[in-house]
Amino acid sequence: MLIVMEAGAKPEQIEAVVRHVERMGFKAHPIPGAHRTAIGITGGRQGSADPEVLENYPGVKEVIRVSHAYKLVSREAKPDDTVVSVGGVDVGANGIVVVGGPCAVETLDQTRAIAEGIKNGGGQLFRGGAYKPRTSPYSFQGLGEKGLEILARVREEFDLPIVTEAIDNECLPLVEQYADCIQIGARNMQNFSLLKAAGRARKPVLLKRGMSATLEELLLSAEYIMAEGNYNVILCERGVRTFADHTRNTLDLSIVPAIKRISHLPVLVDPSHGTGKRNKVAPMSRASIAVGADGVLIEVHHKPEEALSDGPQAILPEVFAQIVRECDAIAQVVGRSLQPALAAS
Amino acid sequence: MLIVMEAGAKPEQIEAVVRHVERMGFKAHPIPGAHRTAIGITGGRQGSADPEVLENYPGVKEVIRVSHAYKLVSREAKPDDTVVSVGGVDVGANGIVVVGGPCAVETLDQTRAIAEGIKNGGGQLFRGGAYKPRTSPYSFQGLGEKGLEILARVREEFDLPIVTEAIDNECLPLVEQYADCIQIGARNMQNFSLLKAAGRARKPVLLKRGMSATLEELLLSAEYIMAEGNYNVILCERGVRTFADHTRNTLDLSIVPAIKRISHLPVLVDPSHGTGKRNKVAPMSRASIAVGADGVLIEVHHKPEEALSDGPQAILPEVFAQIVRECDAIAQVVGRSLQPALAAS
Amino acid sequence: MLIVMEAGAKPEQIEAVVRHVERMGFKAHPIPGAHRTAIGITGGRQGSADPEVLENYPGVKEVIRVSHAYKLVSREAKPDDTVVSVGGVDVGANGIVVVGGPCAVETLDQTRAIAEGIKNGGGQLFRGGAYKPRTSPYSFQGLGEKGLEILARVREEFDLPIVTEAIDNECLPLVEQYADCIQIGARNMQNFSLLKAAGRARKPVLLKRGMSATLEELLLSAEYIMAEGNYNVILCERGVRTFADHTRNTLDLSIVPAIKRISHLPVLVDPSHGTGKRNKVAPMSRASIAVGADGVLIEVHHKPEEALSDGPQAILPEVFAQIVRECDAIAQVVGRSLQPALAAS
Amino acid sequence: MLIVMEAGAKPEQIEAVVRHVERMGFKAHPIPGAHRTAIGITGGRQGSADPEVLENYPGVKEVIRVSHAYKLVSREAKPDDTVVSVGGVDVGANGIVVVGGPCAVETLDQTRAIAEGIKNGGGQLFRGGAYKPRTSPYSFQGLGEKGLEILARVREEFDLPIVTEAIDNECLPLVEQYADCIQIGARNMQNFSLLKAAGRARKPVLLKRGMSATLEELLLSAEYIMAEGNYNVILCERGVRTFADHTRNTLDLSIVPAIKRISHLPVLVDPSHGTGKRNKVAPMSRASIAVGADGVLIEVHHKPEEALSDGPQAILPEVFAQIVRECDAIAQVVGRSLQPALAAS
Repeated sequence: MLIVMEAGAKPEQIEAVVRHVERMGFKAHPIPGAHRTAIGITGGRQGSADPEVLENYPGVKEVIRVSHAYKLVSREAKPDDTVVSVGGVDVGANGIVVVGGPCAVETLDQTRAIAEGIKNGGGQLFRGGAYKPRTSPYSFQGLGEKGLEILARVREEFDLPIVTEAIDNECLPLVEQYADCIQIGARNMQNFSLLKAAGRARKPVLLKRGMSATLEELLLSAEYIMAEGNYNVILCERGVRTFADHTRNTLDLSIVPAIKRISHLPVLVDPSHGTGKRNKVAPMSRASIAVGADGVLIEVHHKPEEALSDGPQAILPEVFAQIVRECDAIAQVVGRSLQPALAAS
Repeated sequence: MLIVMEAGAKPEQIEAVVRHVERMGFKAHPIPGAHRTAIGITGGRQGSADPEVLENYPGVKEVIRVSHAYKLVSREAKPDDTVVSVGGVDVGANGIVVVGGPCAVETLDQTRAIAEGIKNGGGQLFRGGAYKPRTSPYSFQGLGEKGLEILARVREEFDLPIVTEAIDNECLPLVEQYADCIQIGARNMQNFSLLKAAGRARKPVLLKRGMSATLEELLLSAEYIMAEGNYNVILCERGVRTFADHTRNTLDLSIVPAIKRISHLPVLVDPSHGTGKRNKVAPMSRASIAVGADGVLIEVHHKPEEALSDGPQAILPEVFAQIVRECDAIAQVVGRSLQPALAAS
Repeated sequence: MLIVMEAGAKPEQIEAVVRHVERMGFKAHPIPGAHRTAIGITGGRQGSADPEVLENYPGVKEVIRVSHAYKLVSREAKPDDTVVSVGGVDVGANGIVVVGGPCAVETLDQTRAIAEGIKNGGGQLFRGGAYKPRTSPYSFQGLGEKGLEILARVREEFDLPIVTEAIDNECLPLVEQYADCIQIGARNMQNFSLLKAAGRARKPVLLKRGMSATLEELLLSAEYIMAEGNYNVILCERGVRTFADHTRNTLDLSIVPAIKRISHLPVLVDPSHGTGKRNKVAPMSRASIAVGADGVLIEVHHKPEEALSDGPQAILPEVFAQIVRECDAIAQVVGRSLQPALAAS
Repeated sequence: MLIVMEAGAKPEQIEAVVRHVERMGFKAHPIPGAHRTAIGITGGRQGSADPEVLENYPGVKEVIRVSHAYKLVSREAKPDDTVVSVGGVDVGANGIVVVGGPCAVETLDQTRAIAEGIKNGGGQLFRGGAYKPRTSPYSFQGLGEKGLEILARVREEFDLPIVTEAIDNECLPLVEQYADCIQIGARNMQNFSLLKAAGRARKPVLLKRGMSATLEELLLSAEYIMAEGNYNVILCERGVRTFADHTRNTLDLSIVPAIKRISHLPVLVDPSHGTGKRNKVAPMSRASIAVGADGVLIEVHHKPEEALSDGPQAILPEVFAQIVRECDAIAQVVGRSLQPALAAS
């Protein structure tokens, strides 16, 4: 933390700030400059009161935060990349992964048809929602446990580990039981109660960035999960909310190298929700791999125009297969490759 | 919904779209223009597939949504303003309300000292968090039920009904039992599971706008609560996330008249979280009443520099009293007044 | 400037940064902490290379800017409020001003009709565009000098000093000659060439905040004008661009007290462009005065549905008169009043 | 345009809207629905008053714009991709281009050293500012014509056509005379006076997206240039302003396929300004080519830590060469290749 004094701050004002800082249990380092004095603050116990209150002291111009609250997610704490195994498929290793599936599980037939396309197209993991967070209470909310059962059957048949969303603490135990990876959606990124519960689960967690979350907030939400003991966290960029209206959200690909620089956790990108436009999914998938993501999540439907939710962004299985080929080719350029899918059991 | 065809769309492409629309159970109304044809869509059963998929039909240029999914929150459904009674204090009536209290309940002494300031200062309702959603897992998370007990004691002593936050379905029953109004915070505005549970509670709900929520999303979240049978919903603007960095959030006061135009629900404004700056609380409180809000929520602490959370935005009880006087004066200008506080029991 | 080293930075890395900082002509102040070292930087000649490049030095985690580049606009440089006289009407004094007029000057009859409404309604200044910056090249671009002549005639007749926009260096001399105050629009807030030219003009300048300008950028644009010798600058908030879609822009009223805290310049608010909605102009005008603005700019048209530009936000003269009365009443609450209009000459 | 009536709108209200629409010279098409009536509007002369004013008619709920104002930039007007020749180097053809150079031209030696690196590294075009738009009036503002002369000498020596910025109408003739391509910067994207002047120039124009410009606004600014007769326009994405703070701007790569879908103009991406971080330039360059851009603009400096402006985002010539190789490899994946550089003359 750095406290910047006003140009005309009096010595006794500076002195008062220094004393207050020390009373709060921190150490103060005044740095006199040509025009004004700044005061560096170091130390401090966890949970001690926030020195930002000093902003209102006489003579104080500004208080600037320096240190970050995250620890376990940080590359300073663990320099090596974390590799998370999702039902036997490594995420975050040299090989990139392509996760495909419908927005929502609708019927066994639909799910099987799509899963066949994912498997044949080269996808390694299957995604699909049994519990759906929907903006309107009148929209289709998912099949619940019946959807989880369908996912489990499809996993058996196609050897595709399952990623599916838990929307609250109530459904989390069931999701944990059926799925290979528990997804926490963007709207729940700061549902701290759910994060803690996921931190006590025995399955890896895919944590999506909130629609207006900063990098620091995303990492602190991952920290919530890890602080409870679950170290298998995968981050996912899925677009942020901006004024731009040519896509549903603005996919912020630069967060991928930004995360890689300060955290050891793997990162996926979701270009389907990130753009909300079917015709942007393939180009943004290629760009995601080019920028260094560990893989992509793609919405696929064998009959997009009949999908019960998010039809406009779902692509056909044949387009999915094409995307997998392109991602593979781009992975080669950045010294990576496609992670092999599980062999038929 | 309106489908806009490309300038060069062929008659058979238009025909194909019309047929598809009708197959989905809607009615199609082609409107030929000088350069292009548009197709109006009306009807449709609830839950029917989303015509947005038509965006990918050959010859289609754009699909534009027209109707809104909310019903119960709408002034079209209920033209008269809703007045919500919070422990006997009316919110949304002609009289404006000022809600004050600490960010977090810390001790009985602290809470009593602040409550005394609120009561003497003219506040009608008391706020304070027993469960705190915090960005970092290492920050103070609130006293839990002990905090609720403190709030209940303070209510008895000062005749101040209590507004306090429920952060998950687990704590909701306790909050419902102790509080006069259940607050749902910005981070949980789209925690649909919590919204549904709050919709089954017997206490009014104060719903805060999410940090990047549109007006429509806020109303649909209120609709979740009302659709479960709880019609006592109060909306609250608390700032949205933008690029602007002179305040923690950008308080969007224009949403107040926008809500009043399309919904019958009462609206409060929270200038403390909305700006995150102590010196902006008074001016933005005045502006909130001037723009037509039904009241304001203000963070007050008798020793802000020692507050365990959100110190930088908390003001002193004497400033609170001054704000109440100013809000009262501004209320007169817009033909309103200060809602009377409960008399000592 | 503060340089934060990584937790594991080696002493020789810290040493290398210190040496580089000093080679650039700054002074380095290392502050060792429990986990990491920070290095405060002070001094430095104007125009010297930017220490932000140090971000890429080995062992450096982050570089944090501390000081601001503005000088003349700052309250540190001039503690007292600046009062700008616009054709004899003081802006920034205790009395608030209400500026009214059409978006664009269309005809003499239209302009006279509206000016009569402004004068009778209590407005002190008249606004209207002769040069219009329009998003589309096919929209009405203003009458040019003919519009300025109309404005001058209306000033004579109604004793209303004129505020009108200069959109480029070419039209600036004419605008300076005819107008009492030169407006620089939001799209030109960082047209530095125009700012410099306005800084050499002999008339006051009304500088509108750009659609995505930070407070610091707005102040630096004002600094451009003042650095050329024109100290009569009025700032104007007119809404910023966000994801929110219930208004055309999001009017950021909290910037008013933020400016007042660090600058001595007067501040107006434009709720017409700031919301783009006729029904939000009155409430946001009241809120602007309540928050501490020195006045408001309001678009008025006697036949809004026939206006050649920006019809949806223009209000009728009778609504304008009502807004003036409400602003006057709110001004009283904050210890101010309505600035008197010029008497008939 | 579509007018949506309120659910309870009376027949005479609908009738009044229809009559008004027709009086304005448009054609009205009422579409009665189950709950409400919508009215489609077609026709209308250019420059006719804006039907948005109907929003304030009794019984009207909402007015929704449908058609776009751009014409010449549209793929509907010209289905084939435009290829712009910049001094003999094609932009927008199958081959991608990599433009490199310093932010600002500082000295002949510096410029030659960097140009040598660009040429050897495989770049086809050279960029560098002689006129610099700077946020602060106290920052280095460029060498002016002396900078243009340096650029011209470097072009001769290395056969690298020159892209350089014109910041106002005054410098435009000189820039046009010396440069092969006139850059219009983000801050000037809506400086319509400069756009028109550039539209009358005989050199191609590189138009950068404004910091908060929508896709439609970007296209309309290009339309300003084309409407004056200059059809050689190249668009450039350079990041938009959002709440995200891990990069200086948020590079919005999804606009590339969005532009390609509706316009025939070529598109470049500037990852240097778009991220403001040296370590993000390479990954975002790769992603730009992967998403379908026609090339990238990259800031290069042979001694970045001594650059007079924008040091933190400039990369070394050897990194530039590596980026060219990676872009070439990614271009192959999307069926393209590297555009050949001009042979030594």
